[in-house]
Amino acid sequence: VASSPSPITRELARLAVRSSFAALPPAVQQESARTFLNYVGCTLGGCHDPAAEIAAAVAREGAGRAQASVVGHKFRTDLASAAFVNCLSSCVLAFDDTHLATVTHPTGPVAAALCAWAEQHPISGEEFANALALGIEVECRLSNVLLMPPAQANLSLYITGITGPIGAAVALARAMRLDEDRTTWAIGLAAAQGAGMRSTHGSMAAFFVPAHAARCGVSAALLAARGFTGSEATLEGGKGFIEVFAPAADPMQAIEGFGQRFELMANAYKPYPCGIVIHAAIDACLDAATQMPSAGSIEAVRLKVHPLTVSLTDRPQPKVPIDAQISLQHWAAACFVHRAAGLAQVRQECIDDPAVAALRARVSALGDASLARDEAIVEVLLSDGRTVSAHVPHARGSLARPMTDGELDDKFLDQARAVLGEDASRELLRRCRALAALDDVGGQLSALLDA
Amino acid sequence: VASSPSPITRELARLAVRSSFAALPPAVQQESARTFLNYVGCTLGGCHDPAAEIAAAVAREGAGRAQASVVGHKFRTDLASAAFVNCLSSCVLAFDDTHLATVTHPTGPVAAALCAWAEQHPISGEEFANALALGIEVECRLSNVLLMPPAQANLSLYITGITGPIGAAVALARAMRLDEDRTTWAIGLAAAQGAGMRSTHGSMAAFFVPAHAARCGVSAALLAARGFTGSEATLEGGKGFIEVFAPAADPMQAIEGFGQRFELMANAYKPYPCGIVIHAAIDACLDAATQMPSAGSIEAVRLKVHPLTVSLTDRPQPKVPIDAQISLQHWAAACFVHRAAGLAQVRQECIDDPAVAALRARVSALGDASLARDEAIVEVLLSDGRTVSAHVPHARGSLARPMTDGELDDKFLDQARAVLGEDASRELLRRCRALAALDDVGGQLSALLDA
Repeated sequence: VASSPSPITRELARLAVRSSFAALPPAVQQESARTFLNYVGCTLGGCHDPAAEIAAAVAREGAGRAQASVVGHKFRTDLASAAFVNCLSSCVLAFDDTHLATVTHPTGPVAAALCAWAEQHPISGEEFANALALGIEVECRLSNVLLMPPAQANLSLYITGITGPIGAAVALARAMRLDEDRTTWAIGLAAAQGAGMRSTHGSMAAFFVPAHAARCGVSAALLAARGFTGSEATLEGGKGFIEVFAPAADPMQAIEGFGQRFELMANAYKPYPCGIVIHAAIDACLDAATQMPSAGSIEAVRLKVHPLTVSLTDRPQPKVPIDAQISLQHWAAACFVHRAAGLAQVRQECIDDPAVAALRARVSALGDASLARDEAIVEVLLSDGRTVSAHVPHARGSLARPMTDGELDDKFLDQARAVLGEDASRELLRRCRALAALDDVGGQLSALLDA
Repeated sequence: VASSPSPITRELARLAVRSSFAALPPAVQQESARTFLNYVGCTLGGCHDPAAEIAAAVAREGAGRAQASVVGHKFRTDLASAAFVNCLSSCVLAFDDTHLATVTHPTGPVAAALCAWAEQHPISGEEFANALALGIEVECRLSNVLLMPPAQANLSLYITGITGPIGAAVALARAMRLDEDRTTWAIGLAAAQGAGMRSTHGSMAAFFVPAHAARCGVSAALLAARGFTGSEATLEGGKGFIEVFAPAADPMQAIEGFGQRFELMANAYKPYPCGIVIHAAIDACLDAATQMPSAGSIEAVRLKVHPLTVSLTDRPQPKVPIDAQISLQHWAAACFVHRAAGLAQVRQECIDDPAVAALRARVSALGDASLARDEAIVEVLLSDGRTVSAHVPHARGSLARPMTDGELDDKFLDQARAVLGEDASRELLRRCRALAALDDVGGQLSALLDA
């Protein structure tokens, strides 16, 4: 006779209620500020993207009480709507963070929910950082449950949309100091909203899914806080979350080593605003580009990458930024023509640049299962018959080669300047870096973010 | 070589844009008013239930612009939030409609979205009824796609939460007169929000899921209207809706015979405020109860029902209304003790009534696959050794024995009176019955619903 499943949902709620900043190892404490900084920078970077403009316009039209700022749009609205638009802004440039093992983008939904709450409810930097790390931990652990052996969830699921609501709900429940029952219900209500599929990629819907996760998490926590009940065992129980998404999964992965092993330490930040599986190829192309006089001399670019890169990003003829973000051919071509891979390389001008377009047609990609996911090899045939090549064993921004604090700062400032100007950007950077030392996160950040 | 999938998403959008009230057969035109009437009555009936009170309180706290009424709560908020609370009210008593083939509860999400929109945007009764019938049609057809052979979606999915957002989005897109592209995007954005699992049953989360579907549909349509793009082939395409929820499904079921065959005609209304699979047993028990002096003489109640009834509603000891709604034992006992099966029988007093509690313990249920889902047999052993029995081949409210207009009117008035009083209830009933003849649905209903 099979024993009844362990009460994972309630155990996660119990762990959430007991969590504290002081109990986090120093490296995790520090990483919470790094991922927060990355989130805030990306939100500023994306807040005037076309998809973010539409989301903000819809939010403004139905605008609720002025509880939280819509970053970059000079208005406030209710918590859930603000979290929605701000999370959307944070991911619209594909510049957000990535839990590499599961390709969850964990911080957006969690941080957007917490920031919205913090504006009207004083919360210390330590409490905020703890709630942030907690939400990310729960979210990524549940992504592991669904995607790691023995489970194999349907790979067409958009995992941030499936586990993001739970991460946001748990974080907000902690910030609100909900008790164990209410946290359990918040998890249940959030799990019942897990949604999203990969076919959204290539349209604005790709940014909608994480944004929706943020909103769903807020909604779950606000309802649970007032006593709206969820079922007792939503995650592990019969007809529940795991049974729906990955029936063979081992739910214990959600709680084993909780508080000792931290998924936040397996979270990576992107140096390039594009699909993370393209990054190693970008590094290889940037390297190879330095070995030749100009891109005009290129006959052919032959990439060898992990097969996943080919299956997700083989888009030889992107027409608009939303396609170009996830086009391997585009980034390879742009690297050789511009010798750079930043925000400028995903703008319409770069996509339409005849030199880039011509070179995209000369890029071919071979999937090679012997390569790691953060590895790439490029071989370039030049018109004079020469061959130039480069091998990148680990992409910049990978776990083996993480972005430095200085690189994260530059990424932040590059995105913040256009919205806040130089001085305010630097001041905001300073405060984000010192997250845990803030007395009142909302008070100390919102004046700068309410731009 | 397999042919590429037919463009179901776009075809549905095309059919939506071309749909009209005039093209609906008279029976479908009439049924749209019946299901609307049932929705409005249930919304009034449920609006002061504890779950609806919490949902309304959270909506009030973040209240957006006064675009649409929260029924029974004397305030207005933004479209999506109003649709959320009102749909929740409509399903909280488990009194809402049921598409029997798939156990979708189709009208709530669709009608709640349309009502919210109609309050500030003049729309004729014919346009409203067409949009309502359209949304229900698309929703139920997609439920068929996921659940009918050759497909078999995971039965732990809460199907109203999966297809409800799409129904609501298509209906609202039609009411907003969106073009084919924008309707396609609305479907895509709604499909990406499909969510919910059956483990929510037995907690307030069970009512949250359809309510969330209404909100998701509104959100999808409002964004798409402003040009927020969804992918071109969200339903049928690779990594899309069907692939995620039921990869073996035949997407053609979504469009075959569209405009000729109407799922609205396969939609049923409940005479009893409880899980529909209990209804035949209630009819049988009410019948048997008339054949004995009093419930006090009962030794044992033996029910024979379809196996699905046992698997979904075998709850011998419900403690609160939310359990009792889906407890076969409770309803059987209440029928014998009270000789009625209405709203009074799901209140706490009835659950705690010692006579009902004692009798619940004497009810046993046997699943019998030879019985239809709307069939039940009851055998009652009396203390004097006599046996009383009853056989109900088709439950009241089933497709073979649909509720009459008069029965629907009584159900409406029973629920509306407590909120609106007798006169206003009768006037609202009259207007709902004449839905297609209204000039301005919002204007003519909201004064009464803004209670």
